[in-house]
Amino acid sequence: MKVLVDLCVVPIGVGVSLSTYIAECEKILSGAGLKTALHSYGTNIEGEWDEVFAAVRRCHEKVHAMGAPRITTTIKLGTRTDRDQSMQDKIDSVKSKLAATAAPTHASGPDTP
Amino acid sequence: MKVLVDLCVVPIGVGVSLSTYIAECEKILSGAGLKTALHSYGTNIEGEWDEVFAAVRRCHEKVHAMGAPRITTTIKLGTRTDRDQSMQDKIDSVKSKLAATAAPTHASGPDTP
Amino acid sequence: MKVLVDLCVVPIGVGVSLSTYIAECEKILSGAGLKTALHSYGTNIEGEWDEVFAAVRRCHEKVHAMGAPRITTTIKLGTRTDRDQSMQDKIDSVKSKLAATAAPTHASGPDTP
Amino acid sequence: MKVLVDLCVVPIGVGVSLSTYIAECEKILSGAGLKTALHSYGTNIEGEWDEVFAAVRRCHEKVHAMGAPRITTTIKLGTRTDRDQSMQDKIDSVKSKLAATAAPTHASGPDTP
Repeated sequence: MKVLVDLCVVPIGVGVSLSTYIAECEKILSGAGLKTALHSYGTNIEGEWDEVFAAVRRCHEKVHAMGAPRITTTIKLGTRTDRDQSMQDKIDSVKSKLAATAAPTHASGPDTP
Repeated sequence: MKVLVDLCVVPIGVGVSLSTYIAECEKILSGAGLKTALHSYGTNIEGEWDEVFAAVRRCHEKVHAMGAPRITTTIKLGTRTDRDQSMQDKIDSVKSKLAATAAPTHASGPDTP
Repeated sequence: MKVLVDLCVVPIGVGVSLSTYIAECEKILSGAGLKTALHSYGTNIEGEWDEVFAAVRRCHEKVHAMGAPRITTTIKLGTRTDRDQSMQDKIDSVKSKLAATAAPTHASGPDTP
Repeated sequence: MKVLVDLCVVPIGVGVSLSTYIAECEKILSGAGLKTALHSYGTNIEGEWDEVFAAVRRCHEKVHAMGAPRITTTIKLGTRTDRDQSMQDKIDSVKSKLAATAAPTHASGPDTP
């Protein structure tokens, strides 16, 4: 089963600077061959269910091994059976709707989106 | 690795009434021998990582099989290496702090917190 | 607009023990006259949109004032226009489905669910 | 108080195609003068607390007005008092860590990390 995930790992008990831990998670995810996209409040992941969650588990194991005694993680995950949809498809779908309403049909200027 | 999870499964494309789907998920989770506690915006789960996520996967499979073409799920999950902590421990910990400040039964001063 | 919320406030940079901060948030929420229910991975809240989010903001202000330099919070929130639904309604709805399928001990009719 | 938010609005009861609703939310957020970044499982927002949550409320009002009887939304939100941090800062911080370990330009050993 294919899954789209938004992952946000928060190490607790290691101070306020968390990017070193997040960078290690990024390496684990891309090292697992998963398609990822980093954003400012998490990482989008696209892959097979078992591979994704095995990688998320390795992120927890790694962050603990780096010294974090506690981790709280937030995950959003989507599956669908009606059609195949990639991470990029979802973004494109919203952007096409925005473009459709933003671009008046009689636009004449050079920078119409 | 033991994990505490908050799970919220949202079937999409099956109308506004979702409790039938949630009830099936509850049955899967408890049928898997996991400790669960239903609340009004999800279900708390306590168990071993692999067993918990295998059960969450079966929830998705079941909800799709019931007719939902799309599912979006939100998960919070916590792990810790410093000590063992149950779902009830977390609640007790907050409640003991509330009791300590709320019930100074022998308070004598005007500024008792 | 009425809203049902699941709130999980995570202070960062104050060590691994967070219940003192959570207890203060509980006091703010109940002090605001909001209906709340603590669970092991957050707090369910029922109230008017503006009152709920004003109280959540005060939680952040308080937790910062207590010394946490950074906070990450996860919120699930639901609104609906088709009918009024309380936190308890949601739990009752799932439990009635579970009861219907789990205990047809003396069912005699052909269409017992 | 400045806040960084990850917003994911899920209309329920309107079928499986949600991008039209999300596009309307995007217009509300950018129309409110907020800095936003769309990703494949939500939208990152940077702004003042009250402005951000007023805009999120307008998203709910709009999506209901468009015909969705029910909405469930997931929000991650971060505040910090130790320093000012933009959405881009967070991404840059992780990327710089990744670059540091990935590109040892003058690495001489076989097992340089």
